Amino acid sequence: MKAKVVGIIGGNGSMGRWFKPFFETNGLKVVISDLNAGLGVHDLAAVSDVVVISTPIDVACDTAREVGPLLRKDQLLTDVCSLKETILDAMLAHTAASVIGTHPMFGPYSDTIDGQNMILCPERPGDWLPWLETLFTNAGARVTQMKPADHDKHMALAQGLTHMVSISLGKMLKEMQLTPADVWAVSTPIFRLNLELIGRFLAQNHDLYASLIGQNRHVAGTMDQFREAMACGQAAILDGDKSTAIAFMAELKTYFGAFCDKSLATSNRFLKLHAQSKLDPASV
Amino acid sequence: MKAKVVGIIGGNGSMGRWFKPFFETNGLKVVISDLNAGLGVHDLAAVSDVVVISTPIDVACDTAREVGPLLRKDQLLTDVCSLKETILDAMLAHTAASVIGTHPMFGPYSDTIDGQNMILCPERPGDWLPWLETLFTNAGARVTQMKPADHDKHMALAQGLTHMVSISLGKMLKEMQLTPADVWAVSTPIFRLNLELIGRFLAQNHDLYASLIGQNRHVAGTMDQFREAMACGQAAILDGDKSTAIAFMAELKTYFGAFCDKSLATSNRFLKLHAQSKLDPASV
Repeated sequence: MKAKVVGIIGGNGSMGRWFKPFFETNGLKVVISDLNAGLGVHDLAAVSDVVVISTPIDVACDTAREVGPLLRKDQLLTDVCSLKETILDAMLAHTAASVIGTHPMFGPYSDTIDGQNMILCPERPGDWLPWLETLFTNAGARVTQMKPADHDKHMALAQGLTHMVSISLGKMLKEMQLTPADVWAVSTPIFRLNLELIGRFLAQNHDLYASLIGQNRHVAGTMDQFREAMACGQAAILDGDKSTAIAFMAELKTYFGAFCDKSLATSNRFLKLHAQSKLDPASV
Repeated sequence: MKAKVVGIIGGNGSMGRWFKPFFETNGLKVVISDLNAGLGVHDLAAVSDVVVISTPIDVACDTAREVGPLLRKDQLLTDVCSLKETILDAMLAHTAASVIGTHPMFGPYSDTIDGQNMILCPERPGDWLPWLETLFTNAGARVTQMKPADHDKHMALAQGLTHMVSISLGKMLKEMQLTPADVWAVSTPIFRLNLELIGRFLAQNHDLYASLIGQNRHVAGTMDQFREAMACGQAAILDGDKSTAIAFMAELKTYFGAFCDKSLATSNRFLKLHAQSKLDPASV
């Protein structure tokens, strides 16, 4: 049987460069298209069984409009964007090919897909869904299928709110004129971890984050929900008497159940490793 | 030279049990006092060179009032409470002994003090400060001295706000009726880490946290600063155009400087370890 050909549009981008060896290791041929590199989109469409849009999220819909009409019904068009509603609409509208949205829930710094999450939005899967799912699950990923709107709602929480908390903590430290070096020696292990997550966020692609947070229509509502939860928490912990505070935490612990003790055990392991790393921002 | 004797009041508590072998390993003799265990406070005060108050934070001031008057001027009275203003006031008021407040910036699950932060508040140090500081620095801790009020302000950020964010995220998930198992498969590595930090927090001593957050008079103001920073961030990232969002992140990155790339490198290491741990809340 002839090896399937995967064509990555944006093959020189960070996720494109991540996926090329992944596909090759899994027995596929890979061709790429990029600005001034690889094949033109017409040629790529002609030789590929599967076309992956791996461009910046802002131009992904334009790319779908360009490549979609070039594809036959037996081909698969997919993408690796961090938001799924808009790109799925564009792909479905502009091609007769099968369409499955893909969101790898990890960034280009992960060595392997093993242990990572993949979300698939099989909006017009044709016969391609088992093939795509098997490709990822065989490599150790956990694959979950959902509708694009459900995906984007989840991302408003997992990415949007998470990043907004990091951004807000960073902004707050700047307003307080406290650098990481200033607070490092008076930090708990968890706070040092949070500082590193702010630094990590800021070190990465601001353009991507501006899109994936700013263009997710569910983030504003998620922020409102977080503010409500903060007000509840503050009323219970800061403004209540101590028994109110303890009852509030106990109720949450009951809701989180056995996950709490399990988390304590696993987080002990990584906090020990983290303490030994001894990153010292005063020395960077 | 006779080995110094350290008397731990609350020696059977979690930090008391942590510090007993620490002191012994460092050549000190340890006696303890606890409810129905060890020496009475009078006997402990008589035989100890250094008395450490390691009781729950709520009774630490009463303990200082009880043991303080029993101590001679050549002894040292210290404590390991997570807040320092109130206990230092109490210790200074009720003893003629030297007084240094100590805050170990780690919990009882840390194997070693190596790489950890210790804060000392040497309010009436006598000749004891070099001895206490050397004890901790020789074991690999980073020791920082400050005034009790500065300590409590820092803790409003490093502990108070940090824990309030975890509590609020937990409350929000409960309101949304989303369990860790529900969101695990649609989480990024960072969000999974945050979920574990919520679980870790809830697994621990609610009474302690109710005190150290709720009794820190600086936490409410810190929460207000965080809300302001969130509003700024939201205006820039969600309500601005994309160039506003990118400029906002770039300005923060400039402020955080070289710490960003350093954090990306160190956090890559622990996120890889974390991905391999494959905690699955559906299976707990």
